[in-house]
Amino acid sequence: MTIRCSVFIATSLDGFIARSDGDFSWLDSSAPQIEGEDFGFAEFYSSVDALVMGRKTYETALGFSEWPYAGKRVVVLSSSSILIPQNLEKDVEHINASPGEVIQQLELTGARYVYVDGGLTIQGFLKAGLINEMTITTIPILLGSGIPLFGPLDQDIQLQLITSRAYPNGFVQTKYRIYHSKLAD
Amino acid sequence: MTIRCSVFIATSLDGFIARSDGDFSWLDSSAPQIEGEDFGFAEFYSSVDALVMGRKTYETALGFSEWPYAGKRVVVLSSSSILIPQNLEKDVEHINASPGEVIQQLELTGARYVYVDGGLTIQGFLKAGLINEMTITTIPILLGSGIPLFGPLDQDIQLQLITSRAYPNGFVQTKYRIYHSKLAD
Repeated sequence: MTIRCSVFIATSLDGFIARSDGDFSWLDSSAPQIEGEDFGFAEFYSSVDALVMGRKTYETALGFSEWPYAGKRVVVLSSSSILIPQNLEKDVEHINASPGEVIQQLELTGARYVYVDGGLTIQGFLKAGLINEMTITTIPILLGSGIPLFGPLDQDIQLQLITSRAYPNGFVQTKYRIYHSKLAD
Repeated sequence: MTIRCSVFIATSLDGFIARSDGDFSWLDSSAPQIEGEDFGFAEFYSSVDALVMGRKTYETALGFSEWPYAGKRVVVLSSSSILIPQNLEKDVEHINASPGEVIQQLELTGARYVYVDGGLTIQGFLKAGLINEMTITTIPILLGSGIPLFGPLDQDIQLQLITSRAYPNGFVQTKYRIYHSKLAD
């Protein structure tokens, strides 16, 4: 497979990507901002062809004052139907399929580098052996509860540390490659 | 309070300190060893006056061929009675009390720097605002399930990153100070 899938996400030290109600304002309030620092996001984002996300992440994005993925191909994985506003019909696709099938479809239609986002979607792709790289920014806060980044697996997943970097505001960003991805599920 | 409490522990990237059955052999098998490298443990361990741990951690240590805490004061927190072998009666105490009471007792009896170990014990001390520093070594593996390092909290805990270091075998060690510890519970 020539297609690659990456995760680029922030979590609390105790592994939550959002509070239980989806709130992630603690991301900004838990540490001082660094002027002009985006923790590598723009560079990563500009390199991906497509985003795959679950319904909840999609609906959160739809709620923003501006659609955050303008001009990018967005695939929403959902077993139920989703609302796609008319102005996004060209950019957003709804697929009800397994991670392996989604990746096959994306590859057949020209995608080469895919950004996989959202807790359950990331967990499904990890389980299916389809994540090649993860960039995780650990925020210096314990939340105690919320939406977890990781979930149950059928077997251990060995990782290879590529880079690790601490920022002056206490964020620690680690990038891992996944050793033994299955080819597809 | 002049007494300080620290955590020094390894976790999988998904936050588990052991498998559900207590096994932690993945700690050694998940990454190559580094000759002579103990990730700062001996230095940390030599600086503590006393260890506080739960019954499970204590019983795991009892099962080792050699008692791993020889010469250190060990306090076992447990609401049920524990077995203390005769040769350890001078070193091991059983206390059935809250984290705050344990720390008061330790302070009154001369302890200045306490190593708090074991998932539930760490969680109880964190909740009580009694942990001053945490050194967490993140192992490059996802386990999917097991005994978690962190648990529910009554409120967010803000952390201050002190140091972060990546080792050539992919371990990432981060050390945090806790901002707003309560004085006692």
